Amino acid sequence: MSAQETSEAIENKVQALLGQMTLEEKVGQMTQIDFSVVSVVNGQDAENPIDQAKLEDAILHHHVGSILNTPTTPNNKAQSIEKWRKMTQTIRETAARSRLKIPVIYGIDAIHGATYTQNAVLFPQAISMAATFNTELSFKEGEIAAREVKASGLDWNFSPVMDIGRQPLWPRLWETYGEDVHLSSAMGTAYIKGHQGDNMADADKAPTCLKHYVGYSYPLNGKDRTQAWIGERALREWFLPGFQAGVLAGAPTVMINSAEVDGIPGHANYHYLTEILRGEMGFNGFTVSDWEDIIRLHTRDKLAATPREAVKMAVMAGVDMSMVPFDFSFYELLLDLAKTGEVPMSRIDEAVSRILRVKYQTGLFERSEPALAVEGNFATEEAVEVNKQAAREAIVLAKNDNEMLPLRKDVSILVTGPTANLLSVMNGGWTITWQGDAEELYPKDRPTLLQALRAKTSGKVTFVGGQRFSDEINIEQAVTEARNHDVVILALGEKPYCETPGNIDSLTLDPVQMQLARAIFEIGKPVVLVTFGGRPRIITEIADKARAVVLGFLPGMEGGEAMADILFGDVNPSGKLPLSYPRAVNDILPYDHKPIEAYEGNQYRPLYPFGHGLSYTSFETSGLKLDKSQIKLGDNVEVSVRVKNTGQLSGKETVLLYLHDAAASVSRPVKQLKGFKKVELKPGEQQSLEFTLTPEDMSFIGLDMKRVVEPGEFQVMVGGEMASFTVLKD
Amino acid sequence: MSAQETSEAIENKVQALLGQMTLEEKVGQMTQIDFSVVSVVNGQDAENPIDQAKLEDAILHHHVGSILNTPTTPNNKAQSIEKWRKMTQTIRETAARSRLKIPVIYGIDAIHGATYTQNAVLFPQAISMAATFNTELSFKEGEIAAREVKASGLDWNFSPVMDIGRQPLWPRLWETYGEDVHLSSAMGTAYIKGHQGDNMADADKAPTCLKHYVGYSYPLNGKDRTQAWIGERALREWFLPGFQAGVLAGAPTVMINSAEVDGIPGHANYHYLTEILRGEMGFNGFTVSDWEDIIRLHTRDKLAATPREAVKMAVMAGVDMSMVPFDFSFYELLLDLAKTGEVPMSRIDEAVSRILRVKYQTGLFERSEPALAVEGNFATEEAVEVNKQAAREAIVLAKNDNEMLPLRKDVSILVTGPTANLLSVMNGGWTITWQGDAEELYPKDRPTLLQALRAKTSGKVTFVGGQRFSDEINIEQAVTEARNHDVVILALGEKPYCETPGNIDSLTLDPVQMQLARAIFEIGKPVVLVTFGGRPRIITEIADKARAVVLGFLPGMEGGEAMADILFGDVNPSGKLPLSYPRAVNDILPYDHKPIEAYEGNQYRPLYPFGHGLSYTSFETSGLKLDKSQIKLGDNVEVSVRVKNTGQLSGKETVLLYLHDAAASVSRPVKQLKGFKKVELKPGEQQSLEFTLTPEDMSFIGLDMKRVVEPGEFQVMVGGEMASFTVLKD
Repeated sequence: MSAQETSEAIENKVQALLGQMTLEEKVGQMTQIDFSVVSVVNGQDAENPIDQAKLEDAILHHHVGSILNTPTTPNNKAQSIEKWRKMTQTIRETAARSRLKIPVIYGIDAIHGATYTQNAVLFPQAISMAATFNTELSFKEGEIAAREVKASGLDWNFSPVMDIGRQPLWPRLWETYGEDVHLSSAMGTAYIKGHQGDNMADADKAPTCLKHYVGYSYPLNGKDRTQAWIGERALREWFLPGFQAGVLAGAPTVMINSAEVDGIPGHANYHYLTEILRGEMGFNGFTVSDWEDIIRLHTRDKLAATPREAVKMAVMAGVDMSMVPFDFSFYELLLDLAKTGEVPMSRIDEAVSRILRVKYQTGLFERSEPALAVEGNFATEEAVEVNKQAAREAIVLAKNDNEMLPLRKDVSILVTGPTANLLSVMNGGWTITWQGDAEELYPKDRPTLLQALRAKTSGKVTFVGGQRFSDEINIEQAVTEARNHDVVILALGEKPYCETPGNIDSLTLDPVQMQLARAIFEIGKPVVLVTFGGRPRIITEIADKARAVVLGFLPGMEGGEAMADILFGDVNPSGKLPLSYPRAVNDILPYDHKPIEAYEGNQYRPLYPFGHGLSYTSFETSGLKLDKSQIKLGDNVEVSVRVKNTGQLSGKETVLLYLHDAAASVSRPVKQLKGFKKVELKPGEQQSLEFTLTPEDMSFIGLDMKRVVEPGEFQVMVGGEMASFTVLKD
Repeated sequence: MSAQETSEAIENKVQALLGQMTLEEKVGQMTQIDFSVVSVVNGQDAENPIDQAKLEDAILHHHVGSILNTPTTPNNKAQSIEKWRKMTQTIRETAARSRLKIPVIYGIDAIHGATYTQNAVLFPQAISMAATFNTELSFKEGEIAAREVKASGLDWNFSPVMDIGRQPLWPRLWETYGEDVHLSSAMGTAYIKGHQGDNMADADKAPTCLKHYVGYSYPLNGKDRTQAWIGERALREWFLPGFQAGVLAGAPTVMINSAEVDGIPGHANYHYLTEILRGEMGFNGFTVSDWEDIIRLHTRDKLAATPREAVKMAVMAGVDMSMVPFDFSFYELLLDLAKTGEVPMSRIDEAVSRILRVKYQTGLFERSEPALAVEGNFATEEAVEVNKQAAREAIVLAKNDNEMLPLRKDVSILVTGPTANLLSVMNGGWTITWQGDAEELYPKDRPTLLQALRAKTSGKVTFVGGQRFSDEINIEQAVTEARNHDVVILALGEKPYCETPGNIDSLTLDPVQMQLARAIFEIGKPVVLVTFGGRPRIITEIADKARAVVLGFLPGMEGGEAMADILFGDVNPSGKLPLSYPRAVNDILPYDHKPIEAYEGNQYRPLYPFGHGLSYTSFETSGLKLDKSQIKLGDNVEVSVRVKNTGQLSGKETVLLYLHDAAASVSRPVKQLKGFKKVELKPGEQQSLEFTLTPEDMSFIGLDMKRVVEPGEFQVMVGGEMASFTVLKD
């Protein structure tokens, strides 16, 4: 069947099924409950986690359309793939016993792989994937995540995060692809395409979920789940494009912003959820609330005077499915609202149709057991190899004075600092547990940085540090040992965290880490600073003194080995920063700032700029050329440039193409990324790269809030070169 | 004549004069130049500052409508009142020789008194005036500022700042009345009424200028003159009300935001300058650009492809007068734009009418010499006494463990720290010079804190510190001396600054001050922390250890004596914080935050909350009563409450009344100040206070961006009490 025929066939099935459904069954479809609602007291830790009576109450009596994995319930943690298959099979079989046999869709936060399945391939987190500037790796991550989710018997992945990462304090920054619209759209698109393939109904493919629509990532005061102020123009310029890209890539579900923008909570925002998402962006999948966020319109935001009003408000704004999550209150309230006509049947039917459509599109109706076998689909060697490659390309060499790196393998090394010997610090939140900090549950066969260094070197490697992130490090001992070694690897950064528990009051690095660093620097031994963590904590003082700085962010389960590969030169680093690394706590400015922000006394002076990243070889870009110097409105410009490896080693280089609109009716960023290409070159080798600049690339959100290209001069910047073209008036 | 008749008479005069004017004369009226354009090389420092040929070129050939005082030209500083009268007289006489004898209006930044006139009465800066919570003092400040400006021969005061102070990094925070809309509107209104009286044409009255319209105070990254993101609703809720209050109070001029909001520079924003300011707010005076801001639409913002386009853009957006300031480019370009019809004559006539109207309203046409004599109008004893009272009420006692304060007068005191012995640190920018840091030019007869302490005590007062803010303090000596004294007064804070030179990258206190404080605390002597400066720098660590904390902000020229009065108990402190004093560098949250910002893991926990301020006596508010528990839409609620002095000393207390809308279609702040009253009470004395809550107080900016009162419950909070009323549906 053609896509058109498939689509029509699905539409017919949806309407036919809808026609048979009772109001109760419809409202049930819109209800998503947490796993704990159907589980025994010990939850997933129990040998038989599901309480069959509760499950039947949920599916057969309340007709719930979806179940998700609890992040917060005690005892919640990754389970064996066998247990997952068994648990989901019970759900599948129970749903098959319902009147209309509508399958339940099980959603999971598999944000860097199948988080909650033991031994899953866990990739670098999004911020680190963005640092690879490698969309092919993102595509493969999507493929592998989908396959492992499906092999676990699960159906639906609450990923990718398409929020833009422009607020470094925000504890979910690392779940984003960084501060740039073009880069994050490209990485997210590739991920979705890998994850969903050409047909989401394929056994190894699964639906994605764009989150958190929209404006969630830019809290005014940096705290998770607080208010944002984003004008309509800024929203359209920086926050919507990632979601638009995700919709175009085919993502069938969207999760809603838990917080509020300009006074309107995400879950009550008809303008965003209906007018923009449906009317302008053409999204025809379903929206799902975030955790408990409908009732919070009453309990927290005081938008609704009663829980009932909260349900009405959210559903009428455009929420199709409620992540309730702990009871059937949403079901009961919506049922009543529908009976009294306060929520019209047309709205219920619309929401349910959207949910059923996705269930058909993803092949759920045809599935009576887990879609994939474990063997050959889970934690394969091939998948692990892709993950290793991702980790290697994600790490950013930020400073390398006098070729301090790579280290010789016979050098004697003191390794110290709280991030040197833990897997959790390289993985962050949503790893095995919600907060990702249960180090004891991490796989024993993956090396920490320390273990990876020891495995590679023939020299002495001494470690001074604790067993946990919070363990006090004996500074005196570290200093003494430093004197006895050639080099100190100082591994600093952040503990793992997720969402509100990750809120901080200061972007400074922990004072105890500063203290350790200062003590080490005092003795004058060469120091290599390695950082892991989700946010760019302020390291200026340390980075100034270190001979080399390697920024790991969250490189995932293979991060230890990848970092060791880079430190010893087994891998030539190629990561670049997907954000501006700030120099000071209150000096936060993205690279695509406005001219006024870098005028006279003001300047863009991060510690490391967006796109920064060194290599052990050197590259030169030259010969920037445009195919035309003048174009008509609506035409493309073809750009070519050469990149050459001018050093002594093979390596990968990402060439970044920026555009600047020389004069416009709305102030334009000093530059904006519009293209990037990553190439691998041998010493002396060169390659020509071609980019196409489209009218979309030249456009911006004009005075009337609509996207427009204004005639006039544009400047194209690649490497140190610049070339101009003019868009002529009609 | 009645106000109506006066208004009609003026309108007739404006139209008659406009009818006689050439295009050149009209465009000239719209031009404001800096004093340096008409001065000799040494500027105002010269004995005869004005270059008569240049002045004639400006007034007779370029027909300029206004001159302002240069803030940035070298040698620019306060001059004697006699020189000012002479300089302005020359300008007046030259204007009188022009064809139509249209007077020039001379504008000056007399933001806390007549800044640029030597020995003027210089008040606490706005942030400190706000801390008095005393509108009568603000009214008197306005009276005195106007009188001293007029006695100096000057015409027009670029004050008050009606920007809302919610971004503590912003180097102009201290020019605002703090974070609250109600407080700043009340303080600004009182100032304007004192400054302008019932008739701006009175000899001792002068026109004010509301600045900087609108959104200037909330730069995204905290730096002066950078972009803001403010949604339309937040703009209307927090940023416009102060300007609306100023317009209602009769301010005839408005200065425009130098920066940009949501991508549109202030000077190109037709929506703000014309649709809102004129169409909605009913402003009929004239707007003036800020410094060089029209040409910057081209040079900086790249909004205009040429300087000519920049002029057209700004004038058509609604800028009536251009602070050019250094040449006649605006005049030439606008002349040409008018001749070609690109700027229609109707727009020129509109702008010029507005300017002429203000010149008539302020009596400029009738004035052939300075409006007031110096004697009896400048630096009078009475004015100085008002200033002292303002300084005393501006200082905030934030902490006073175990009645550490007041100090006995026979105690031996070590005074140390960079703000202890300077007048400049108590005055801030716009004092004698632009940056306010020329300590050597400050009056010799006003005491610093150190001098005031010495004048009051019979005990030993030792000082360890420098002569300038930047001088290194001998910590070892300070520690040694601390051991020899009963008490340490540690005077910390900020150096004076203004605008972009005041930008900072971190809200932390200078590390050298932290070092001094830590060394002092180590020896265990009781410490009184005193701070001066325009921003709430982070003092948490020090404040935790100090026995008492007294926040001075910028109390002005009488600040030293006022602070000593409070430290020794000659004055009972009554200042309250007009902002939330943050506890940590990245934890900025105003008191009127949203419920979501203080939910679960998130909380409002500043070091000191808005409205905080201790006294040497104690007060109790009780008996909160509303006259009705239910009202109809549009009705008022009368609130009464008793306040009693329950301590042993006379003192002043400000009673704050907050309102909360229990449920609304847009999320509402947890509480908002809607009334305050300051009363003086003897020990045991009590007083009943009445407040009226109006529909305006109950309103907010609704889903459709219009102000609305929604039926439902409201909570009134005063002291520890709460009372509710319900607004019934129609």
